[in-house]
Amino acid sequence: MFTTVRVIGAGRVGLALSARLRERGVALSDGDAELVLLCVPDGAIAEVARELEPGPWVAHVSGATRLGALDPHARRFSLHPLQTFVRERGPEQLDGAWAAVSAETDEALARATGLARLLGLRPFSLADAARPAYHAGAALASSYLVTLHRAAARLVEAAGAPAEALVPLMQRTIENGFLPTGPIVRGDFATMDAHLEAIAAAAPELEPLYRALADAERAAA
Amino acid sequence: MFTTVRVIGAGRVGLALSARLRERGVALSDGDAELVLLCVPDGAIAEVARELEPGPWVAHVSGATRLGALDPHARRFSLHPLQTFVRERGPEQLDGAWAAVSAETDEALARATGLARLLGLRPFSLADAARPAYHAGAALASSYLVTLHRAAARLVEAAGAPAEALVPLMQRTIENGFLPTGPIVRGDFATMDAHLEAIAAAAPELEPLYRALADAERAAA
Repeated sequence: MFTTVRVIGAGRVGLALSARLRERGVALSDGDAELVLLCVPDGAIAEVARELEPGPWVAHVSGATRLGALDPHARRFSLHPLQTFVRERGPEQLDGAWAAVSAETDEALARATGLARLLGLRPFSLADAARPAYHAGAALASSYLVTLHRAAARLVEAAGAPAEALVPLMQRTIENGFLPTGPIVRGDFATMDAHLEAIAAAAPELEPLYRALADAERAAA
Repeated sequence: MFTTVRVIGAGRVGLALSARLRERGVALSDGDAELVLLCVPDGAIAEVARELEPGPWVAHVSGATRLGALDPHARRFSLHPLQTFVRERGPEQLDGAWAAVSAETDEALARATGLARLLGLRPFSLADAARPAYHAGAALASSYLVTLHRAAARLVEAAGAPAEALVPLMQRTIENGFLPTGPIVRGDFATMDAHLEAIAAAAPELEPLYRALADAERAAA
């Protein structure tokens, strides 16, 4: 496994990964290293990679970016921690999370998998070509979970109720393994219609989103 | 507060509430009681209420149902635990959850609030007329959170990745207070387009839902 790593990028992911590598006894270097780990914004990966001297392993931690962005480097892989990070917390943010690793050779896959385990992540292999679908799924689970919560909070507040009351409900819905719950299950159309009427009055901008979710439920029923 | 309660309905909510009342020293009765607590399906509340002898307090635990469904009883209220329940667990499911209480008199509100606290719930007052908007918000947070997860899992599995990897991400997104996260934040249209292309290929049935979520993000940006 890698004993010296150069981490480029000190954003939320870069900070958490650097702290965890340090914890695990890996030497962090600003110069020569066995691995250069790019923790930069997606749009900067290709440019930063092109400017690196060939030699060391090069990897990125982006969920959306293909391995080709690491050209011209041949010893390369990607390792995407499937987690959301904040600056206020440390490397413990990695604990329990999974990581998508993509590689083009057995050796690169072994390196990526070993690094994920060292970081405290649970690695799974992701085909480079499957990356957009994977990332869309991750976005639904995270970015768009924020969107869903914002919509729910808007309605609850429009009803004069505290939005924080939604949090234990959402947590338990996950904890219970996403068991279908509430009168919507298996298409209670009368309740859906009552919701749409309330949304039209209280927050009409949410109508298209509600309809799309209800349609998805109808299709699943 | 109530010292004898008749709980009608032994579904998931009725079981949890009965167990908690018993724990707290309230006598559960099949006949005379100070309060009849209707834990029956929404569609059955009005009929069951009509068949009850007038006299005791009558309450329901539905999120969607208006107080008028408890006619002809005048001493009435509703108490909706904002939580999802399973049969396999007990009254501890109530801990930490909030409860919407609706009432038409100060006495009824005091009764409802006291009962919520006895049950271990955090009560907030909900205007009866605001109930549909409140319930739509609760549905987004719970029923439609299941919908969102199903869509996310479908895409991640289409990419050959394990759907269970999404769970720590979703939990942390909540734990971090729904901070906007990922490249979608503030409208990264290129990433959204890449997602739509992947969805069209891997799971085209999810396209309307993704578009509705993306539009909601664009509107918020």
